[in-house]
Amino acid sequence: MNYRDITIEYNSFNETYKRPFGATKVNEEITFRILVEQAKNAEVTLVVAKEGHGERYIRMSPDEKAYHKASYTADEVGLCFYFFIISYQDHDVHRTVYAGSPGHGIGGEQIIKENRWDITPYQITFHNYTKPAPSWYKETIFYQIFVDRFYNGNEDQRISSPKKNSFLYATWEDTPMYIKDCQGNIIRWDFFGGNLLGVVKKLDYLKELGIGGIYLNPIFKARSNHKYDTGDYLCIDEMFGDEKTFQLLIEEAEKRGIRIVLDGVFNHVGADSKYFNAFGNYPDLGAAESMDSPYYPWFNFSHYPSEYESWWGVKDLPNVNEHNPSYRDFIVGKDGVIEKWTKMGIGGWRLDVADEMPDDFIKDIRTTMDSISEDNILIGEVWEDASNKIAYGKRRRYLLGDEIHATMNYPFKDGAIAYINGHMRARDLYTRFMSLKENYPREAFYSVLNNLGTHDTKRIYTEIDDVSKLTIAVGMLLTFPGVPCIYYGDEAGMKGEADPYNRGPYPWGNENEEISTIYRNMLKLRTSDEVFSKGDFIPFYQENLFGYMRTTAESAFLVLINRDPEEARLVISDVIGLESLPDAEAALLDDFYHLKSSSFTCIRLR
Amino acid sequence: MNYRDITIEYNSFNETYKRPFGATKVNEEITFRILVEQAKNAEVTLVVAKEGHGERYIRMSPDEKAYHKASYTADEVGLCFYFFIISYQDHDVHRTVYAGSPGHGIGGEQIIKENRWDITPYQITFHNYTKPAPSWYKETIFYQIFVDRFYNGNEDQRISSPKKNSFLYATWEDTPMYIKDCQGNIIRWDFFGGNLLGVVKKLDYLKELGIGGIYLNPIFKARSNHKYDTGDYLCIDEMFGDEKTFQLLIEEAEKRGIRIVLDGVFNHVGADSKYFNAFGNYPDLGAAESMDSPYYPWFNFSHYPSEYESWWGVKDLPNVNEHNPSYRDFIVGKDGVIEKWTKMGIGGWRLDVADEMPDDFIKDIRTTMDSISEDNILIGEVWEDASNKIAYGKRRRYLLGDEIHATMNYPFKDGAIAYINGHMRARDLYTRFMSLKENYPREAFYSVLNNLGTHDTKRIYTEIDDVSKLTIAVGMLLTFPGVPCIYYGDEAGMKGEADPYNRGPYPWGNENEEISTIYRNMLKLRTSDEVFSKGDFIPFYQENLFGYMRTTAESAFLVLINRDPEEARLVISDVIGLESLPDAEAALLDDFYHLKSSSFTCIRLR
Repeated sequence: MNYRDITIEYNSFNETYKRPFGATKVNEEITFRILVEQAKNAEVTLVVAKEGHGERYIRMSPDEKAYHKASYTADEVGLCFYFFIISYQDHDVHRTVYAGSPGHGIGGEQIIKENRWDITPYQITFHNYTKPAPSWYKETIFYQIFVDRFYNGNEDQRISSPKKNSFLYATWEDTPMYIKDCQGNIIRWDFFGGNLLGVVKKLDYLKELGIGGIYLNPIFKARSNHKYDTGDYLCIDEMFGDEKTFQLLIEEAEKRGIRIVLDGVFNHVGADSKYFNAFGNYPDLGAAESMDSPYYPWFNFSHYPSEYESWWGVKDLPNVNEHNPSYRDFIVGKDGVIEKWTKMGIGGWRLDVADEMPDDFIKDIRTTMDSISEDNILIGEVWEDASNKIAYGKRRRYLLGDEIHATMNYPFKDGAIAYINGHMRARDLYTRFMSLKENYPREAFYSVLNNLGTHDTKRIYTEIDDVSKLTIAVGMLLTFPGVPCIYYGDEAGMKGEADPYNRGPYPWGNENEEISTIYRNMLKLRTSDEVFSKGDFIPFYQENLFGYMRTTAESAFLVLINRDPEEARLVISDVIGLESLPDAEAALLDDFYHLKSSSFTCIRLR
Repeated sequence: MNYRDITIEYNSFNETYKRPFGATKVNEEITFRILVEQAKNAEVTLVVAKEGHGERYIRMSPDEKAYHKASYTADEVGLCFYFFIISYQDHDVHRTVYAGSPGHGIGGEQIIKENRWDITPYQITFHNYTKPAPSWYKETIFYQIFVDRFYNGNEDQRISSPKKNSFLYATWEDTPMYIKDCQGNIIRWDFFGGNLLGVVKKLDYLKELGIGGIYLNPIFKARSNHKYDTGDYLCIDEMFGDEKTFQLLIEEAEKRGIRIVLDGVFNHVGADSKYFNAFGNYPDLGAAESMDSPYYPWFNFSHYPSEYESWWGVKDLPNVNEHNPSYRDFIVGKDGVIEKWTKMGIGGWRLDVADEMPDDFIKDIRTTMDSISEDNILIGEVWEDASNKIAYGKRRRYLLGDEIHATMNYPFKDGAIAYINGHMRARDLYTRFMSLKENYPREAFYSVLNNLGTHDTKRIYTEIDDVSKLTIAVGMLLTFPGVPCIYYGDEAGMKGEADPYNRGPYPWGNENEEISTIYRNMLKLRTSDEVFSKGDFIPFYQENLFGYMRTTAESAFLVLINRDPEEARLVISDVIGLESLPDAEAALLDDFYHLKSSSFTCIRLR
């Protein structure tokens, strides 16, 4: 990059400038090189700051090719931030400029500023990622099930144990709705009556699709249909079944090579719970009933019993004090919640609102899980780049080792949709994906749980209301690094605006066949080669075109995407992102590719 | 009554002054007598006006006892109004005063005014009531059933044919609620799943109670749970059953001496109907879909298709133009609605919002009914004194003959509750009841359908939240002239504020035994003697105490009511209302009666 008359070149994505690429283990040396040309008497300083510590100024040494070089090693996990100070002689004037990143948490080519305070430093994630996610997890495809809406496995679709003062949808085909008062409070819960036996009965369907993991939305006893308002951590909700049904599900799933991941909601409970018992529906003395309740210290009351800390101010979800020893022991201790269900043979846990849980609590959960089996997965719900998430004023450390294995990858979904719908340039998509690859420990990046939608977002076929473009999204989901997760019914062409419409009943017998076929084809592609779960990810772009290579020693695939309604020509020599491709890989590519309008193409190169 | 120095006495309730008592057949002479004493040169004029005609001035002739007398005969049905002009010499001044009634539609002792325009005239109802209500009706006890909430007769309480996009209560014990948006519009209908088979299965229970007639809230196909929004007049709602079920109900009821009265809702239909078809749910071309619809002329559109006349502005209930020949024929013509269902063997119809229906339409309904069987009852929904109801600026004529046999007697309920709860004096209750007796043709008064609550009011045990006082209300209901009608579940002690709480599910197995016993005892009393359905009704009061005699040639019963928490003594010589009791009847009475606090007493006199 030319700045006035001088040239400064740095790009954190490129190993010419920073090696090794991306997040780095502690005690591993990083070498930085920055090109500064046409600058008389140039002196370059690398400024590095470990978060929470002062800055270190490291004078860089120029080499004969005008590269200035320095190295850095961190001895502690955490984030580091860095930028460059470049001083030089401009005719008779001594000048100083600064080089930093294009934005918070974003890497790539540097930005030059004359004022130090205008600079955003680059991020480096230093981690100690010793135990990666189990390989069954990394190599599988997940399917997310919102149990009430998936399938009712009872004879005649009778609904089991309906809850007093709740409503049942009259037909399985009804449109979901909340029953709220005019203040927006839910006054009765609504149920379709899907249950665990329904999941059991559809295991053959899932196996045939190619699914190897099921992420179940919460299934413990709770008043709502979503069950994030846990009523009793030690019971399966009676509408969903009982422990026997759950055991049957685990066993029948195992027979088909499918593992069950539970949703662990440990940040809050339901106001209508054994623990809080605001409505006296449980026989136990709850915290809301008496200060003598054994559960009283679990909660933070500001004015007893009416005012208490709750999740986002929702009174129905009182927050738990996760530092309370009795609560902590209940969840992670002997015969506790984690132990009970993990010992039944599940495949792991997805931690709800992981970013609101103390790091040491997550570590305790991981320790308890690992003590039972190291073959279980721990996935955290995080909506942003998990490497630099700040929650409640605290930098989160889930990815630095010993906490979660993987996070839900909403940034993948957000980027893919924005790009496909024409709301983001291919260049920005490239930068986002490269930044994720850079910021996440490699193991974490290749373990993210990718989705195109969940119970918390619009459905993908509503976000992208066009079958060709939807094909691009599905193709990306199933060729991207990390673990693809299909939200139940997306493969049947279900549509749905935000909650509650995204939680509709699965249209058994009325699937959209065109979309089912797209999913089946992409699922076949995914399972056709290990490259999609294990291979390197090398994204690139050219104007509006986007693509990536997935490569292992054995295989290489090229994904090419044209989101636009016009045909296009991808010219490899014009592409940005493949600069440091080894010659042997580059030789696999044609000089150019012809891309049809709104198309997803995946080509086997070797 | 003394006025200045003179005495004027008139009382329309007393045959000393007006004979015959009450409403009168056309061409039957009425004799008026008014006492004017201590008035020098008194001249009294009876002023009578037939409604819609000019006044007639009839000079009254004094007799030797200072009674002034005149007679009047009407040759046309309708209401007449009358008052008296009294002129006399007060020392040297010529004075004129006026005597009229205590209020609109109220009879009894006269009020004297010096200004003619301050006078409210008395009412006389002239009728031509040739065909009284059938005797089975007058002699029976009714039971009102809101079908969705009474009993689900299906095996395992499975709900038949639930409607798409509606809600089912999760348990039979749930509390009813409307599912509304913030503008108050119902956005989904809610169902418990009661049905006609449920009524069939409870016929033995009703027979054992002593019930002889069931008034069913509407049962024709409709979207709502109440079915006042008729969707198809020729079909039983599929959740309630089908024609076979209905036929079964009629037959099984008949075997037990019970007749079924249907709710006829002919003033409006549902927007979601075969006729209006606002949502295209019916295959027929509806009025809202095209002006070419055969149903288009049934409705009054002001701006097609969005603006139309509807019941109280409720867009879901488009009003029908009852003068439209095609609609009229559909309801009352050959193979029409009235014919179809009446021929199946029902006991009659209750006409919803009778006061909004044209008189000639009601007459047509009656004619069609009578052509099938004269043993059927036609009951009108009227909330006030039906004799002088003005609806939409028009005096209604239902009671004058050839229209309805009977009306729902809400004034009974309102008066009884107000008195029992201490919000009305015994004297005013007496006047109200006497005025009803006076204004209604005798046949109509002894045919009213009395209630203590319906699907449109609070439940009686909520209105009167005290078992002793409730006993008074139930006692009055079952000893009053007219036909008692028990709202389903009142006899089980159900409580309920206004709609929807008054439409709760019947608490089978959880009945309030104390209240059930009260009802059973009062029902036994009612059926113990014909005097309660046929006997004269002679009310009276003494301060806060209220009572009445029911007498036939064979029997006489005395009802005594003390609403207050103190014991009381009723002294027959102090009582008002028994003045013109024949000596033989008077001889049956003791000189005084001791009444317990909050008590209902019924004594057999002969």
